[in-house]
Amino acid sequence: MADDLLAALAEVVGATHVLTDEGTTLPFRTDWTGRWTGECRAVVRPGSTAEAAAVVRACAAAGVPVVPQGGNTGLVAGSVPAVGSVVVSTRRLDAVGEVDDSTGQITAGAGATLAAVQAAAAAAGWRYAVDLAARDTATVGGTIATNAGGHHVVRHGMTRRHVVGVEAVLPDGSVISHLGGLVKDNTGYDLAGLLCGSEGTLGVITAARLALVPAVEQRAVALVGFTGTAAAVAAIGPLRRRLPALEALELVFADGVAAVGEARGARPPFDGAAALLLVEVAGSGDLLEGLAPVLADLDGVVDTAVATDGPRCEELWRWRDDHTDVINQVGDTPPHKLDVTVPLDRLGRFVEEVRALVADLAPAARLWLFGHAGDGNLHVNVTGLAPDDETVDRAVVELVAGSGGSISAEHGIGRAKRPWLHLNRTPEEIAAFRSIKDALDPAGILNPGVLVPERR
Amino acid sequence: MADDLLAALAEVVGATHVLTDEGTTLPFRTDWTGRWTGECRAVVRPGSTAEAAAVVRACAAAGVPVVPQGGNTGLVAGSVPAVGSVVVSTRRLDAVGEVDDSTGQITAGAGATLAAVQAAAAAAGWRYAVDLAARDTATVGGTIATNAGGHHVVRHGMTRRHVVGVEAVLPDGSVISHLGGLVKDNTGYDLAGLLCGSEGTLGVITAARLALVPAVEQRAVALVGFTGTAAAVAAIGPLRRRLPALEALELVFADGVAAVGEARGARPPFDGAAALLLVEVAGSGDLLEGLAPVLADLDGVVDTAVATDGPRCEELWRWRDDHTDVINQVGDTPPHKLDVTVPLDRLGRFVEEVRALVADLAPAARLWLFGHAGDGNLHVNVTGLAPDDETVDRAVVELVAGSGGSISAEHGIGRAKRPWLHLNRTPEEIAAFRSIKDALDPAGILNPGVLVPERR
Ligand SMILES: Cc1cc2nc3c(=O)[nH]c(=O)nc-3n(C[C@H](O)[C@H](O)[C@H](O)COP(=O)(O)OP(=O)(O)OC[C@H]3O[C@@H](n4cnc5c(N)ncnc54)[C@H](O)[C@@H]3O)c2cc1C
Ligand SMILES: Cc1cc2nc3c(=O)[nH]c(=O)nc-3n(C[C@H](O)[C@H](O)[C@H](O)COP(=O)(O)OP(=O)(O)OC[C@H]3O[C@@H](n4cnc5c(N)ncnc54)[C@H](O)[C@@H]3O)c2cc1C
Repeated sequence: MADDLLAALAEVVGATHVLTDEGTTLPFRTDWTGRWTGECRAVVRPGSTAEAAAVVRACAAAGVPVVPQGGNTGLVAGSVPAVGSVVVSTRRLDAVGEVDDSTGQITAGAGATLAAVQAAAAAAGWRYAVDLAARDTATVGGTIATNAGGHHVVRHGMTRRHVVGVEAVLPDGSVISHLGGLVKDNTGYDLAGLLCGSEGTLGVITAARLALVPAVEQRAVALVGFTGTAAAVAAIGPLRRRLPALEALELVFADGVAAVGEARGARPPFDGAAALLLVEVAGSGDLLEGLAPVLADLDGVVDTAVATDGPRCEELWRWRDDHTDVINQVGDTPPHKLDVTVPLDRLGRFVEEVRALVADLAPAARLWLFGHAGDGNLHVNVTGLAPDDETVDRAVVELVAGSGGSISAEHGIGRAKRPWLHLNRTPEEIAAFRSIKDALDPAGILNPGVLVPERR
Repeated sequence: MADDLLAALAEVVGATHVLTDEGTTLPFRTDWTGRWTGECRAVVRPGSTAEAAAVVRACAAAGVPVVPQGGNTGLVAGSVPAVGSVVVSTRRLDAVGEVDDSTGQITAGAGATLAAVQAAAAAAGWRYAVDLAARDTATVGGTIATNAGGHHVVRHGMTRRHVVGVEAVLPDGSVISHLGGLVKDNTGYDLAGLLCGSEGTLGVITAARLALVPAVEQRAVALVGFTGTAAAVAAIGPLRRRLPALEALELVFADGVAAVGEARGARPPFDGAAALLLVEVAGSGDLLEGLAPVLADLDGVVDTAVATDGPRCEELWRWRDDHTDVINQVGDTPPHKLDVTVPLDRLGRFVEEVRALVADLAPAARLWLFGHAGDGNLHVNVTGLAPDDETVDRAVVELVAGSGGSISAEHGIGRAKRPWLHLNRTPEEIAAFRSIKDALDPAGILNPGVLVPERR
């Protein structure tokens, strides 16, 4: 049976694109943090939508689960295969079309990296507003499947807002395609929006029509150090209100900045700040003229570093962007990663509470906090925990839910948070998810074990 | 059976809120244009979400279809009841909450009018960016159920973009509620987005959390007359590109403007224009300073009228907004109304082609064209046709589909366009719609006959 399937898959994509060797498949079976490793029958790399559809049909016929995978940078183990499944890697579907200048749209294959789309947009005087630190590896399909957030949500919204239409293989192997690019098109249910955030459980996305925004003429970045968390959090509201050109508003803390500095052998622009906000504004004209008085009005500021030229902006950004990489190197075991939203008016209190909680439950562990604070979004990372011990994780998500927050701001539910979905979603909502899943995937072929809990 | 149901409904909402008299129910059974009239067992007016849920449960238990209805201003007969159904009118669910100033959000009952939400937002220094001429009657629930567009899509997008969360009664009578207002919240499928545009076929929306935009400090409106269609359409691209503050870009023609003038006993600001664009910009500072040079660069301009104070802006807007009302009064039979998107680069040609088509097929009829041209969205109205003769309608939607356009830009599919959905959507897509519908509404209780075609 298994051999029949592998032969059928090789027939579809060519034998070189069916990987079965344990060593070769390892990078496709292990998540980016190294915390999760799965088992699979094969990794298959289709080279076209038709091949992807034939792969899904072959797997469905054999009753073998399909795990869609893009860049494998997801942080909730959603692309880590379950035993016996076939990983469908979209990386060969990496065509990036021309920018349509009249609409500001572009069509890209699901396997194109975020960086490739950003580059194509930039070359045509436009910009793809979805951006995150994994941009060189994360794919169009993966960012859509997770409804990725990233740095510019505070101004431009999550990935869903930028998706005009998708092409996808449904679990029965049929292909839906709606890439015409019409922005006003109320002809039926929003399938593209539904696939967005479905984490590979409803369809294999093969291509997407994406909306671009005009290129940024200039930008300015400020790293602002505060005496404490309360002062940093208190600054978020005024910054959002007073800076219409606000493109990013990120929060980091002294310990994270120190760790990044150590890893890079670099010194932070200033010392003595307990909490720091990275503020980016973008637009035209003299951006500093608008930014300076707003920064001057903030309370509890220790020091500020400002940049307006590209390389210096990047330099300041690295104090934020390198967090994920650096934390991944701390200690002998992979970090436990949680990504949560807390209502802005609870954020300061939450930081204190989560610190106390981790100190109490795991005195030897280290807590790292950083994130897209402008959206109330914090990444809660804990290093020094046993990989399988989820006591701290559970306590944190319960604290989040109790604070009126979301246990997954942007990373999704995946396998990692599936047991906790009920903390945010009622039985009625989960039943609705399950109904939709069962309707589109009655045989449970696509990414079983991810996102949607079993029917009770 | 029927009497049992009516008694049960009266038990839930009180006898005064179960309307059965033919005369009393007539306005709920007839659509805004007067073209469609349906039959129903009763109109029921729940006063709370719990009552709405109990009404749906009672109808489901009796196997009686439920037709959700808000302001009944929809233009595709989606709220016109099928024989034997119960209309659930949401108009009593009209509570409008306080604006949350830290997030710029508001919670409103499904029965609140657009105007009521706009007023509450304005009173708090914010703005609800969804706006359309039916604002005094159209409801929050109806605009969400149709994913309404309106005047400001060119800048702010359709209704879906403004919906942060919804509360709804599902077809099984269960209630889902996600009104916490977190913008970053990737915890499961996008139920709110799916209900948006579902036209009452998946759930009865009872309330919504809506995102507001900052209030507009100032606005300027220009009515620009062109020598012909080609010149007006050619101006759309440059206006969109060069006016970042563009809030609305509407197209009308000489005959429509003349009809509005006649109905109002008013003279248009100037004569001699074959096609006119209404341009609105909003922001702060001297808006005319930005607008004037852009207008001056346009080709084929006959004359321009500009306004910056509120009443004069409204005055110019009426030359566009009054079209729907005025056309509704023309002739003895209701207009046939189609609402379509055509790719911008095909729009000029489409105007010529649709004129030739209607002149050819129905020489005695009159064609009225107007719409949100900035989005490629045209309303195609035809007066003087027999109510049931759809020869012209069919030819127009076929022309639209053949031009790469959408047969429903913003009004939805409803009953009116359901036979033509296949012109825009493949069998695979329609099968996916049907699967979703059957999953959430296996008994087919909610708005049967609307939007989703039967399984073949
Ligand atoms: C350094 C770093 C920084 C990050 N920063 C952010 C951030 O700021 N914001 C944020 O939101 N996320 C962030 N992430 C996580 C984020 O989810 C991923 O970067 C990205 O969205 C996943 O894309 P991918 O192609 O790697 O998908 P994968 O990891 O391959 O897959 C992720 C999920 O999507 C599914 N999937 C993938 N491709 C498809 C497809 N074609 N069709 C259907 N399903 C598919 C998978 O089954 C899986 O469930 C970060 C990750 C890293 C490592
Ligand atoms: C003068 C005029 C101008 C218009 N201009 C525009 C425009 O610019 N842009 C635009 O997009 N539309 C426009 N429309 C049409 C538009 O669809 C409606 O104005 C509006 O969106 C419908 O709201 P309503 O409350 O009247 O809904 P209804 O007409 O009552 O219902 C419309 C559909 O939504 C469903 N529905 C209603 N309430 C609920 C609920 N609570 N839960 C679930 N389903 C529900 C109904 O079953 C039906 O299918 C216009 C209409 C008129 C008369």
